[in-house]
Amino acid sequence: MSVKGRIEPRTLKGFRDYLPAAAIARERLIDTAKAVYRDFGFAPIDTPALEYTEILLGKGGDETDKQLYRFTDNGGRDVALRFDLTIPFARFAAQYTNELGLPFKRYHVGPVWRGENTQRGRYREFVQCDFDTIGTESPLADQETALVIHELFQRLGFERFTIRVNDRRVLNGLLERLGLVERSVAVLRALDKLAKVGPEKVTEELAREAGATAEQAAEVLAFAALSGSNEEILARLVELVRGTAMGESGVASLAGLVAGARAVGVAPERLALDVSIARGLDYYTGVIFETFLGDLPGIGSVCSGGRYDDLASLYTKQRLPGVGASLGVDRLLAAMEELKMVDAKSAPCPVLVTCFDAARGVEYLALASELRRAGLGVELYPDQKKLGEQLKYADRRGFRLAVIAGPAELEAGNVQLKLLATGESRTLPRADLAAACLALLE
Amino acid sequence: MSVKGRIEPRTLKGFRDYLPAAAIARERLIDTAKAVYRDFGFAPIDTPALEYTEILLGKGGDETDKQLYRFTDNGGRDVALRFDLTIPFARFAAQYTNELGLPFKRYHVGPVWRGENTQRGRYREFVQCDFDTIGTESPLADQETALVIHELFQRLGFERFTIRVNDRRVLNGLLERLGLVERSVAVLRALDKLAKVGPEKVTEELAREAGATAEQAAEVLAFAALSGSNEEILARLVELVRGTAMGESGVASLAGLVAGARAVGVAPERLALDVSIARGLDYYTGVIFETFLGDLPGIGSVCSGGRYDDLASLYTKQRLPGVGASLGVDRLLAAMEELKMVDAKSAPCPVLVTCFDAARGVEYLALASELRRAGLGVELYPDQKKLGEQLKYADRRGFRLAVIAGPAELEAGNVQLKLLATGESRTLPRADLAAACLALLE
Repeated sequence: MSVKGRIEPRTLKGFRDYLPAAAIARERLIDTAKAVYRDFGFAPIDTPALEYTEILLGKGGDETDKQLYRFTDNGGRDVALRFDLTIPFARFAAQYTNELGLPFKRYHVGPVWRGENTQRGRYREFVQCDFDTIGTESPLADQETALVIHELFQRLGFERFTIRVNDRRVLNGLLERLGLVERSVAVLRALDKLAKVGPEKVTEELAREAGATAEQAAEVLAFAALSGSNEEILARLVELVRGTAMGESGVASLAGLVAGARAVGVAPERLALDVSIARGLDYYTGVIFETFLGDLPGIGSVCSGGRYDDLASLYTKQRLPGVGASLGVDRLLAAMEELKMVDAKSAPCPVLVTCFDAARGVEYLALASELRRAGLGVELYPDQKKLGEQLKYADRRGFRLAVIAGPAELEAGNVQLKLLATGESRTLPRADLAAACLALLE
Repeated sequence: MSVKGRIEPRTLKGFRDYLPAAAIARERLIDTAKAVYRDFGFAPIDTPALEYTEILLGKGGDETDKQLYRFTDNGGRDVALRFDLTIPFARFAAQYTNELGLPFKRYHVGPVWRGENTQRGRYREFVQCDFDTIGTESPLADQETALVIHELFQRLGFERFTIRVNDRRVLNGLLERLGLVERSVAVLRALDKLAKVGPEKVTEELAREAGATAEQAAEVLAFAALSGSNEEILARLVELVRGTAMGESGVASLAGLVAGARAVGVAPERLALDVSIARGLDYYTGVIFETFLGDLPGIGSVCSGGRYDDLASLYTKQRLPGVGASLGVDRLLAAMEELKMVDAKSAPCPVLVTCFDAARGVEYLALASELRRAGLGVELYPDQKKLGEQLKYADRRGFRLAVIAGPAELEAGNVQLKLLATGESRTLPRADLAAACLALLE
């Protein structure tokens, strides 16, 4: 790989660098998520990137195993890079809940690694951004989870998005009423293909794999096809699950989500009941969330989660029910780029102080420092290059204002301020510069 | 490792979890550093945790090699976890400076991994927080590096700290004048032992290893013992290096650092010339920075860096001189904990809305939401437990205010607000709650 003693600079397949514009956008996104999480009482935690492999693999997971970055460390330990933040949180919860007390609300932002097929624009290293409430079965925690997602997308500046919600217990209630509850996995597997193969094939599979009669299959399909307003869906669900404790608690849960959202003024179209969402077969036991962007539904769910019965049974006998969701940072960032919600320029601050005369460098330092003390972000160009070159640099980076001060201006106590978008510039007393910048940047 | 089918929850030796109080403190520290970096025009970047081993090992590094987390991935590639952020930045700079342009100012915060001996409280995974300016040799960039460090420690709330600065060229200038410049490595190695073995032994070693006469050794030792005010040291240095271009540019560089700091109002005791600091032998070529805490000097430098001639010669023929420094996040956090600058409580927000009556859960959601809209961080307790238990939870977590609303109060449009520090509480109209909270939290 070495050319004339040099090493070719490159990243591993499936890994990427973040250049400033993308890194700034990602940092903003994550900072917004953290601020929302904190405002709802979630506290940060962190866990190591590397864990004992036995912790990560738990009791199985063939698919995951293949994707694992696993190796033997210099101490002979079988270790691997975490592939999500849920398993490390389960291990963490088992270790510390006695110390931390319950309920416990945490968020966790960090990279995870999966040796996946890199087709379809997927990366082998990506950032997850999870929040969970454990140690409670309260429907209020479910309702708040939806409100956190809602607040998050609002603060990120999305005007059109929908949080689709379901509750596992609703279908289970229906199956209980139909006497098919023992076959629920087969039913879910068949229903999962509905969009792809159509109702007839699903009816056949329901008969073959779940032993469903034509009538039972029809009820299951009618359930899966439920649509309308939240109120209409709730009314139909009440009938469909009538008499089953499981189903009724599922419907009550969904009714609570709708009522909770209404109570805090969430627009009705932001939270939509959708009994067709499933999110895998085994893990979730109650509410399920998926979030879609109105302007880019094809990208899939950008924030998903739900309620689980027990987080950490692999590591502790303490039962830890909980509810939470995970923000797909990289997918959302890709969406925001596509929707032109991300600034392509990379200046992390708005003002560039140019260097007109290197001999007066210390004066430029003082000038930049004065502006910073007024609350402005200021970069100082370090070299006495041609002014045109410095302004080109400012433009390319996306600075909004440039300050120019030649010897004569400095002697007279003046500076020149240039608005880069228009090229307009004016000379003003140095004492007025900070206020002028602040006014222009408002 | 499995007890009754369970897996023991544990972390790898040398790795640690961050519980909320520590994670909150670390997040604040990093957020402060990022804000300061941005205010000086540094933009974020990120690079993968995993790189090709040949990239990380470059042209050698035996010690590093032993500490490397290195393995063969499922695609047969020889890969390793990065052990610092400098080498990935060098690789990054070689790949993108044509696209990004120069000068280029970046910061990078992220974990790095070293399989070090874990004695002495060192961890095998720790966070680095670097900033660098590349593509310029301007002394202004050196001066700004010192100002960034200064601003950072001020914003972190340190009242006593000292940035010790040196310039490699000063000693080299002296050695040039003495005719010992060819032996500079041997001289540095001998000087490095001064504190440990004393001047006599160093004189012996200077004679033996660097061929220094008694007079030459005396000059070198007089240099290393230089102390006094910055002005006194500068005056002595001028004499010691007189007539050598290298030495004179080193002294000019130090004089510039002092002048730059003075120009922006940095207190004189915050920036101290110290010709005894060396920071390793090979890497730095100009200014060197180390930062010590006045109240905890024994912990060593918490922010170090300097100027280098060429960042990325391993990967590109383009010469990339630069200057920068690295904040030791974990060491600084340990110091802040020891100095009681870190809050041991873990509530990420100040207000807890208690759950007095689960049947009115939706009303509590609305109440919490009202407060959030007023800009308050609010957690809602999810379960209708005894009020005493909820208040104990609030106390343990470190909430400052608790809101209590029973059915009678809610009917009357009132709430109870409790100041947790004193136990004091009062009833007030719900409409006044947000303002009352904001006033109490000021």
